[in-house]
Amino acid sequence: MTKENKATVVNVELGDRSYPILIGRNLLERAGEEISNRLPGSKTVIITDETVKKLHLKTLEESFQAAGVEYSTLVVPAGEKTKRFEIFEHLCDDILALRLERGDAVVALGGGVVGDLSGFVSGVVRRGMKFVQIPTTLLAQVDSSVGGKTGINSRHGKNLLGVFHQPALVLADTSVLDTLSPRDFRAGYAEVAKYGLINDPEFFEWLESNWEGIFSGGPERDQAVAHSCRAKAAVVAADELESGNRALLNLGHTFGHSLEGAVAYETERLVHGEGVSIGMVLAHEFSEQLGLCPAEDTKRVIAHMEAVGLPTRIDQIPGQLPPIDTFMDLIAQDKKVSRGQLTFILTKGIGTSYVDKTVSAEPLRAFLEEKLGK
Amino acid sequence: MTKENKATVVNVELGDRSYPILIGRNLLERAGEEISNRLPGSKTVIITDETVKKLHLKTLEESFQAAGVEYSTLVVPAGEKTKRFEIFEHLCDDILALRLERGDAVVALGGGVVGDLSGFVSGVVRRGMKFVQIPTTLLAQVDSSVGGKTGINSRHGKNLLGVFHQPALVLADTSVLDTLSPRDFRAGYAEVAKYGLINDPEFFEWLESNWEGIFSGGPERDQAVAHSCRAKAAVVAADELESGNRALLNLGHTFGHSLEGAVAYETERLVHGEGVSIGMVLAHEFSEQLGLCPAEDTKRVIAHMEAVGLPTRIDQIPGQLPPIDTFMDLIAQDKKVSRGQLTFILTKGIGTSYVDKTVSAEPLRAFLEEKLGK
Ligand SMILES: NC(=O)c1ccc[n+]([C@@H]2O[C@H](COP(=O)([O-])OP(=O)(O)OC[C@H]3O[C@@H](n4cnc5c(N)ncnc54)[C@H](O)[C@@H]3O)[C@@H](O)[C@H]2O)c1
Ligand SMILES: NC(=O)c1ccc[n+]([C@@H]2O[C@H](COP(=O)([O-])OP(=O)(O)OC[C@H]3O[C@@H](n4cnc5c(N)ncnc54)[C@H](O)[C@@H]3O)[C@@H](O)[C@H]2O)c1
Ligand SMILES: [Zn+2]
Ligand SMILES: [Zn+2]
Repeated sequence: MTKENKATVVNVELGDRSYPILIGRNLLERAGEEISNRLPGSKTVIITDETVKKLHLKTLEESFQAAGVEYSTLVVPAGEKTKRFEIFEHLCDDILALRLERGDAVVALGGGVVGDLSGFVSGVVRRGMKFVQIPTTLLAQVDSSVGGKTGINSRHGKNLLGVFHQPALVLADTSVLDTLSPRDFRAGYAEVAKYGLINDPEFFEWLESNWEGIFSGGPERDQAVAHSCRAKAAVVAADELESGNRALLNLGHTFGHSLEGAVAYETERLVHGEGVSIGMVLAHEFSEQLGLCPAEDTKRVIAHMEAVGLPTRIDQIPGQLPPIDTFMDLIAQDKKVSRGQLTFILTKGIGTSYVDKTVSAEPLRAFLEEKLGK
Repeated sequence: MTKENKATVVNVELGDRSYPILIGRNLLERAGEEISNRLPGSKTVIITDETVKKLHLKTLEESFQAAGVEYSTLVVPAGEKTKRFEIFEHLCDDILALRLERGDAVVALGGGVVGDLSGFVSGVVRRGMKFVQIPTTLLAQVDSSVGGKTGINSRHGKNLLGVFHQPALVLADTSVLDTLSPRDFRAGYAEVAKYGLINDPEFFEWLESNWEGIFSGGPERDQAVAHSCRAKAAVVAADELESGNRALLNLGHTFGHSLEGAVAYETERLVHGEGVSIGMVLAHEFSEQLGLCPAEDTKRVIAHMEAVGLPTRIDQIPGQLPPIDTFMDLIAQDKKVSRGQLTFILTKGIGTSYVDKTVSAEPLRAFLEEKLGK
């Protein structure tokens, strides 16, 4: 409306649950309009965190007012620890107290934490309300807001409770990323690089030459977000409930989640994307040790992660880490376990990852012990 | 195996989520075998309540042992108040502590309370585990175990939090109903009668002549359970997520739920099926008042409910009831509300119920005020 508003549209094809992802600058200003077009007559409840509230809530609320979208707002603390049962329960209760109905919408304005939590809430209140994602971190725009995985953490591990609940609409306003801390921007970038490492060597190569434009907010940023969303949408459309190849999206994540668990989700020490960065490097190194991945590919991955300022080694995590047994436990509890066999994403080199169900505990333990420097 | 074991099979047709309901006497004894056939290699966790544990858990565990099905057992208190957030959270946590995986199964052994709660738990742990229903009340066998609706209550109303999560198998052992209290048996019978009242006048007529065989455990019991399951399966197959005609299954339930809410789910005062019995009578009386339902049909409904010993009037609920405003609030919060319009199941007579979206608050309030005797 007020500013230039061209958006790229990526469709997630899921039959009668298909939905569009809109990607572009200043989309927040037309969110009200987009929501009332897509969900006419729905009331809404915006869920956001303290940090995003201060920076971007006003723009969203003004756009809702302009479009005549009824809304209430619920605010949660910022940070990974917000993805817990107690807050989940409170949000469910608050939404019921607002007397919203099944046709009304929960609007997540925030990063992956707000999105995962709000998605889970919207999936269970009245057995499923409408859901809209307005991701405000790079990580959420390229990954967590797309695909319908929602959830919270448990003391037994990350994302162990949740549902598959697809949004009706995703609005990725790439200009809101301008306020993101460099650290959180880098963390999200790890997931962008992931799409190259999974099955798209040309994209990884493009990133090696163009990452600076992504960080500085050039046109490369919108291109990278759109490319990533397309990559994720294709995987999700082919395997919505993660019975097969969707697991590829977890490249680096079994290691990464165990690291996040090891620091008890203390985001001062490690955020998700940093865990993924280290985890992807470990996946390449472990694959190399198994004779699967060429050494030069591992080197390229490390070099690129270092170039953008992401950690690549466990010893870069500040503070004491728990003993190897804790790691093995966390890995065994990770949701990518199937009938006692570890399901690991291994790789034959950049862009040639695959799901391996034959990894056994001993070589993994030996590999990790060495990496932990014990 | 040991005793005569003929089972009737009713299939719930839901594409790749289709599943069989087995109905017959002494099925508990072959539950292990049925589960290991249907879910080979799955470990299980049995969830049951204190009462059912004492009566029937041993038979189930022995059958699991005989069939080599690995199991753990979690026990919750008996009664409607068990369907609450705190217990839901504990069960999720306990199952994660058992390190069960997505391919493992939660087995609900109990009435609708255990089934609804366990179904919700199995729907969210690791974003959805396998689920098996072994309903042990008449209500659960003919209604709650079939169709995939799961959930818990909230202080804002009944079943307001939950998911749709279909079981992989339902085993309805009609001989376990022999230990059910007459009161709980009658309560379940209200849901059996419901299928006649919705759209099956011949079945209602059959019930008027055959109800004694159902209560005494004659062959009529298995016939009635199978007929009810078929009726429910047909509705569910046509409208899994309750976007249309599935709402017919809620005949009597908006009134019934408001009565349950009014006594704060104190099952000493009112159990679900009793609320449904009074609710169905109210639905006929209200429809009669609106000139829709012939007076003689209302009379027949009342006469039959009285014959089997079910309550038909609000004043049969012991103790003080809240004021009319509380009822109107509870009705408005009931999940069958859509965009502010009350969705009510009304009837043009026995077996001709329909979904009415035009009921407004005033006549309803006047009708209820009269019934509350104020
Ligand atoms: N559902 C999925 O498929 C999926 C996929 C990947 C990751 N995840 C989850 O996503 C979470 C991580 O997401 P995240 O990195 O976005 O974390 P986050 O939501 O905690 O955001 C990171 C920080 O950035 C702040 N922030 C958000 N938007 C901002 C903005 N525009 N400007 C300034 N600050 C802003 C937040 O307040 C927070 O402090 C993890 O819990 C992870 O498990 C889920
Ligand atoms: N999910 C659905 O589609 C659906 C449909 C209808 C009702 N419901 C729910 O079902 C619940 C009511 O179910 P219910 O009436 O089975 O209640 P319930 O589970 O509380 O069982 C009633 C009582 O019978 C006892 N019991 C169970 N089996 C027994 C047996 N074989 N012998 C002796 N005692 C036994 C229980 O311990 C309990 O005390 C309500 O919460 C209602 O909302 C759900
Ligand atoms: Zn991730
Ligand atoms: Zn019922």
